Amino acid sequence: MSDTLNHSLVLASRPDGSPTPANFRMEETPIPLPREGEVLLRVRYLSLDPYMRGRMSAARSYAAPVEVGAVMEGGTVAEVVVSRNPDYREGDMVLSHSGWQEYALSDGADLRKLDPDEAPVTTSLGVLGMPGFTAYSGLLTIGQPKPGETVVVAAASGAVGSVVGQIARIKGARAVGIAGGADKCAFVREELGFDAAIDHRAPDFAERLAEACPNGVDVYFENVGGKVWDGVFPLLNTFARIPVCGLIAQYNAVGVPEGPDRLPGLMRQVLSKSLLIRGFIQREFVDQRPAFYLDMAGWIREGRIRYREDIVEGGLAAVPEAFIGLLEGRNFGKLVVKIS
Amino acid sequence: MSDTLNHSLVLASRPDGSPTPANFRMEETPIPLPREGEVLLRVRYLSLDPYMRGRMSAARSYAAPVEVGAVMEGGTVAEVVVSRNPDYREGDMVLSHSGWQEYALSDGADLRKLDPDEAPVTTSLGVLGMPGFTAYSGLLTIGQPKPGETVVVAAASGAVGSVVGQIARIKGARAVGIAGGADKCAFVREELGFDAAIDHRAPDFAERLAEACPNGVDVYFENVGGKVWDGVFPLLNTFARIPVCGLIAQYNAVGVPEGPDRLPGLMRQVLSKSLLIRGFIQREFVDQRPAFYLDMAGWIREGRIRYREDIVEGGLAAVPEAFIGLLEGRNFGKLVVKIS
Repeated sequence: MSDTLNHSLVLASRPDGSPTPANFRMEETPIPLPREGEVLLRVRYLSLDPYMRGRMSAARSYAAPVEVGAVMEGGTVAEVVVSRNPDYREGDMVLSHSGWQEYALSDGADLRKLDPDEAPVTTSLGVLGMPGFTAYSGLLTIGQPKPGETVVVAAASGAVGSVVGQIARIKGARAVGIAGGADKCAFVREELGFDAAIDHRAPDFAERLAEACPNGVDVYFENVGGKVWDGVFPLLNTFARIPVCGLIAQYNAVGVPEGPDRLPGLMRQVLSKSLLIRGFIQREFVDQRPAFYLDMAGWIREGRIRYREDIVEGGLAAVPEAFIGLLEGRNFGKLVVKIS
Repeated sequence: MSDTLNHSLVLASRPDGSPTPANFRMEETPIPLPREGEVLLRVRYLSLDPYMRGRMSAARSYAAPVEVGAVMEGGTVAEVVVSRNPDYREGDMVLSHSGWQEYALSDGADLRKLDPDEAPVTTSLGVLGMPGFTAYSGLLTIGQPKPGETVVVAAASGAVGSVVGQIARIKGARAVGIAGGADKCAFVREELGFDAAIDHRAPDFAERLAEACPNGVDVYFENVGGKVWDGVFPLLNTFARIPVCGLIAQYNAVGVPEGPDRLPGLMRQVLSKSLLIRGFIQREFVDQRPAFYLDMAGWIREGRIRYREDIVEGGLAAVPEAFIGLLEGRNFGKLVVKIS
C-alpha cells in the first residue's frame, strides 16, 4: 500500500426529490489499522442499487436511514490487504458491505470469500448476489409461476428484472419484460429470451402491454411502481400474485400525489380477483440462499440464465453520477462501479 | 301445502349507491313441480350477507351479477316438502342456495342435510356456515395469528367478525374488535371475550384504536374498508397480514373518490413493512371445510365460540329493509330472515 489515505463518500444532506451530486461529499481520512481479529479491505467494486435511495431519506423503512455525515452503505467486492484474522489471507477476494469508500475494516463475520476462478467476482454483486437472490426468492416464494402463466417484470434488462424473467421461463411461464428504449427491449428479447419486451416510453405503452399479455397477467413482479403499475393492474387475473421488492419510479416523489384516490379501487380489485400483494426484502428468505447459489450457478453454466453488467470506471468520484443515472434508468445491466 | 303460489323478490333495478326498496319487486308465480330426481323446497330462513350488494351491481367481480328481473341469490335453510329424489324425504331440513323466495326446486346436488338436534338450523347460515368458514379459512390460512400477536377485525359483533376474534383468542392472540355503538362493543368484550372493543362512531376512534393496540397490529382481517382501514393502517407491524374478505363501507360508493391518491403510500408501506394483502373468497378453501365443521362444532360445544343471531320476522316482505339495514350496520349479530 502506497496510499495512506482513505476516501469515502458521505451523505452530505438528504435529497429533496431526485438526488444531486451536492447530496454527497468526498472525505479523506487515514486508512484505518486492523486490530487483532480484523482485516483491512481495499474495495475493488461497489454495487449501486435502487434501495440506496431509501437509505438517503429520513423516513422509516425496513432499514435505518444512513445518518447525514455517515458513509453511504453498499455491497462491495474487496481484497484483503492486511489480515490479522486467521480465516483470511492477504489477496483473498471477499464480498463485503463496505459502502461508498476505498478502504474498510471487518472482523470477518460479514464477509464471504469469493473464488475468481468460479465466476467473475462482480457477479457476487449481481446475478449471484443480492439482486439475483431478490429475483429468485421473491418470484419463487411469492410469485410461484406455473407453466403457461404470464409473468410481467419491469426494469427487465436490470439486475433483478432480467433474472425474474429468465427464471419464469425456466419454470415454464411466459415472460414479458418492460424496459426503457429499443436497445434494452431488443436485449431483453434476443439475449435474455423473454417472450416479449415492451418499451415503457412508447406513447401507447398500456395497449402494447395488453397485446403482449393476451391471457392476462398471473404474476407481476413489482420493482418500479408508477405508470408500469397502471398498465399492469387492469390485466391482472384472478389469483394473481404481486411480489413487491421496489418502487423506483416513486422513490424521488415529493409531496402528496393528486387525486383521484385509487386506494379504494385497488382494494376492490384485491377482493374481487383474490389478489395477493406482498412486500418483501430478500434477507427474509435467507434459508433459501444455499439453494439459490446451487440453482443459479447451474443455470448460468447451462446458459439458461444470462446477465449483463454495466461496469463504470472512474473510481469513487464517479459514484454519485452513476447512482443518479441508475434512478433514471441510464444504466444497461447490473450497475457496478470499479473503485480501484 | 295449502298455498299454490310462490313469492319471490327479484332485482327490479341496479342500485345507484345505497339500495332502496324500489330496487326490488315481489313477484308471484305458481309453485313449481319437481320432476323425477328433484325436490321441492320451502324456504324457512334466508341469510342476508354483505356480499349480496356486489351481486346487485353490473361490475365484474368474483361472481356474476344477478340479472335485472332475476330472483336475488342467497343461502337458505329449507324444508323438503315434495321429494322425487331418493336421497331426500319430506320433512328433511337442508342448507340450500334458494335465494330470496319462498319455494325452489333442487336436484339435490347443491344441498346439505341439517340435523336440527345437533345445532339450531340457522347456525348453518352463520357460525357453522359460510360466514363462519370465511372467518376460519381467511384468518387461519392468510392471517396465521401467532400467540401474543394482535388481531384486529371490524363488524366484530357480526357473523364473520365475531368468529375471527374468538378464533384469534383460541390461537393465543389478542383480539381487538371494532363495532358501531356501545351495546355492540359491550357484547364484543363481555359476551365474545375480545380483549378490547372500539366504537368506530367515536370521534377519537383512531386514537382509541391505537391505545388498544400498544404493540401494533399483526393481522387486520379486512371486511369493511373506509375509515376503519384508515385507523388500522398506520398501526400495522412489519410482516402484518391482511386477509380481505369484504369492503362493506365502500360497496355503496358512487363516482371516483377525491384525492390525494393514497395508492403510492400504500405500496410504500407494503414494501417497507413487508406487508401481505390477500383478497379471498371462502370457497377457494373448500378443502378445509371438514376441518372447519369439526373444529367449530367442538369450540361451540366447549363454549369457546359464542354467536348471536338477529332473526327478523315478517317473511319475504321484510327482506329489502333488513338488507338495507345490514349495509348500515343496524343488525346485531348474524342477520337471518324467517321466511315461513
